[in-house]
Amino acid sequence: MQVLHMNKGNGDTSYAKNSTVQSKIISVGKPIMKEAVLEMLCNNVIESMGIADLGCSSGPNSLSVISEIMDTVEAANRLLGRRSVSEFRVFLNDLYSNDFNNIFMSLPAFYDRLKEEKGLEFESCFILGAPGSFYGRLFPSNSLHFVHSSSSLHWLSQVPAGLESNALKRLNKGKLYISKSSPQSVVDAYLLQFRNDFSLFIKSRSRELVAGGRMVLSLMGRSSTDPTTENSCYQWELLAQAITSLAREGRIEEEKLDSFNAPYYAPCTEEIKDEIQKEGSFTIDRLEAFEIDWDGGAVTDIHTPHGKLSVGRRVAKAIRAVVESMLESHFGIEPDVMDDLFIRYGDIVGTHLSKSRTKYINLVMALTKKW
Amino acid sequence: MQVLHMNKGNGDTSYAKNSTVQSKIISVGKPIMKEAVLEMLCNNVIESMGIADLGCSSGPNSLSVISEIMDTVEAANRLLGRRSVSEFRVFLNDLYSNDFNNIFMSLPAFYDRLKEEKGLEFESCFILGAPGSFYGRLFPSNSLHFVHSSSSLHWLSQVPAGLESNALKRLNKGKLYISKSSPQSVVDAYLLQFRNDFSLFIKSRSRELVAGGRMVLSLMGRSSTDPTTENSCYQWELLAQAITSLAREGRIEEEKLDSFNAPYYAPCTEEIKDEIQKEGSFTIDRLEAFEIDWDGGAVTDIHTPHGKLSVGRRVAKAIRAVVESMLESHFGIEPDVMDDLFIRYGDIVGTHLSKSRTKYINLVMALTKKW
Repeated sequence: MQVLHMNKGNGDTSYAKNSTVQSKIISVGKPIMKEAVLEMLCNNVIESMGIADLGCSSGPNSLSVISEIMDTVEAANRLLGRRSVSEFRVFLNDLYSNDFNNIFMSLPAFYDRLKEEKGLEFESCFILGAPGSFYGRLFPSNSLHFVHSSSSLHWLSQVPAGLESNALKRLNKGKLYISKSSPQSVVDAYLLQFRNDFSLFIKSRSRELVAGGRMVLSLMGRSSTDPTTENSCYQWELLAQAITSLAREGRIEEEKLDSFNAPYYAPCTEEIKDEIQKEGSFTIDRLEAFEIDWDGGAVTDIHTPHGKLSVGRRVAKAIRAVVESMLESHFGIEPDVMDDLFIRYGDIVGTHLSKSRTKYINLVMALTKKW
Repeated sequence: MQVLHMNKGNGDTSYAKNSTVQSKIISVGKPIMKEAVLEMLCNNVIESMGIADLGCSSGPNSLSVISEIMDTVEAANRLLGRRSVSEFRVFLNDLYSNDFNNIFMSLPAFYDRLKEEKGLEFESCFILGAPGSFYGRLFPSNSLHFVHSSSSLHWLSQVPAGLESNALKRLNKGKLYISKSSPQSVVDAYLLQFRNDFSLFIKSRSRELVAGGRMVLSLMGRSSTDPTTENSCYQWELLAQAITSLAREGRIEEEKLDSFNAPYYAPCTEEIKDEIQKEGSFTIDRLEAFEIDWDGGAVTDIHTPHGKLSVGRRVAKAIRAVVESMLESHFGIEPDVMDDLFIRYGDIVGTHLSKSRTKYINLVMALTKKW
């Protein structure tokens, strides 16, 4: 949990520069977010609205969600002919190692824009950083009205028990995540870890949200109950192929590959519903699945050699910005090997996508805290 | 305001490694802080205590104050035989460009220690980052019980009007701050800026603090009404000497020195009292002056050549960690010139202190928000 963070700064391999997939995911979920905010405001006048974005990361996406939520509140004001919120308390959450400096440096321009576009006084919007794991309490009881999280909840709090790098038995050799060849014990360990984490998440938020408060969550998932379909794990399969090819050349230790399992899980809707219903304090208003292109859906003809290369590279850069901190810490890879790994990964991805248009499945749900 | 920040990271010239003077200042103010917290808790049971540290910077000092406040609350619990606070909401404030990443990375260890030493659950202490200028609103109305600020309020919101780098007339040539040779117009401009800033600070906090809430503020000041005494400005005088000597060698542009004035002001107690009384919502419980050694009071015999050198170097490093970002931005100094500047400054400071034990004057005040 201390290790995982998106690549910092604004450089070529930074998350800030390589997060169009996550941006796409945010825009796909936007109608559901807007609906949830509007519904909430129809029924309530909120003096001071507490909003949390959990797993905000850094870069342009961090504040775009907040912007959208505030736009929606403004639209609601116009529709309802009343000022439904007079103050915003905005909490940006991510792990301790997230690049909060990057977000905070963009706040002056954000506040200026608020003032210009919405005539909002700085004094009615307070943006704070709330570092820590969302698998546990982050905020005082009954202090939030709206919780948003996008592209974060597929990250587990830890590598599933029994699959850690120091486990005695290597259960998932040559793989980074659940794969067609993984034994059932690996699949079970992943599901158990997801259940524990997700239920703790729901329980924690349940105490922090006021009755009638809303959550809109989106995360990587799958449309089938089978966790080994291409749409739910193939990005990891191909990354394992790239690592294996470097291991064969002796540039990465093979043992390191055998001992690595990603703290990631792409659940199906049933697994999510189960945990929400077990916890009991939320109603599920929506739970929908969307297909997302691996490269965020940029218009490129994959069937030309150039197109194949450029799509592959783009996907590789997007994945690198997310997983590099983990790989670095586990594999101890030197920068030049890291560069080579992702060039190779890009080639493998390009070739794969030119034959089979595998997509991510993104799940979006809207929940209401019961009265 | 966008430029000023303590040197980031944990390196040799970082603020984190060179902030013993500020640490000394915190410990000098500790009894006054403890008294204020205890007094407040005697009269109130606070369900959820809102604490803000304004100008928290980064490094070990950032969390030490919070620790002290929580220790005092615990001691109060024991003394009063009741649980006077059941939840802490802690807000760490500094400018947008502050190294919040550095503070946040130290939070897991801080939470672990809390749990170990105080048996406090993570769930009863929420630490957040609140980036922005304290010359203006930072928090919702009536949301705070205790405000602390140390070694920050001597920084103005801007260079005083008329003394900016683009001003037509150079009123304070060859100097960085008020000096014996400065014309009265310079002294007046500084005082006016301080009055405006400090009154805005008081007014903003007045709206954020609950009635009966406390503030303990400490800042660089002076014991005399004359702003040109050595104790109130000589560190700047000597820094100007070091810059002048590099300017003579053509390594720094002299014009740049003439156009620079530090956004800093060391007020006397009367100037502070005036603004607090004018604003009217606080009573002054204490307002005291302490002498602080330029090097934080480490035991070194300044009258040996080695001692002189080492004291000078220590002072130079402490000042560098604070002012480097400003000098870099204004003078555009290359790293090697910056190194030389502070070596030279260290020599000048060592020589000065071996002849005259000039000290900083630190003002500490405790205020109560009226009912």
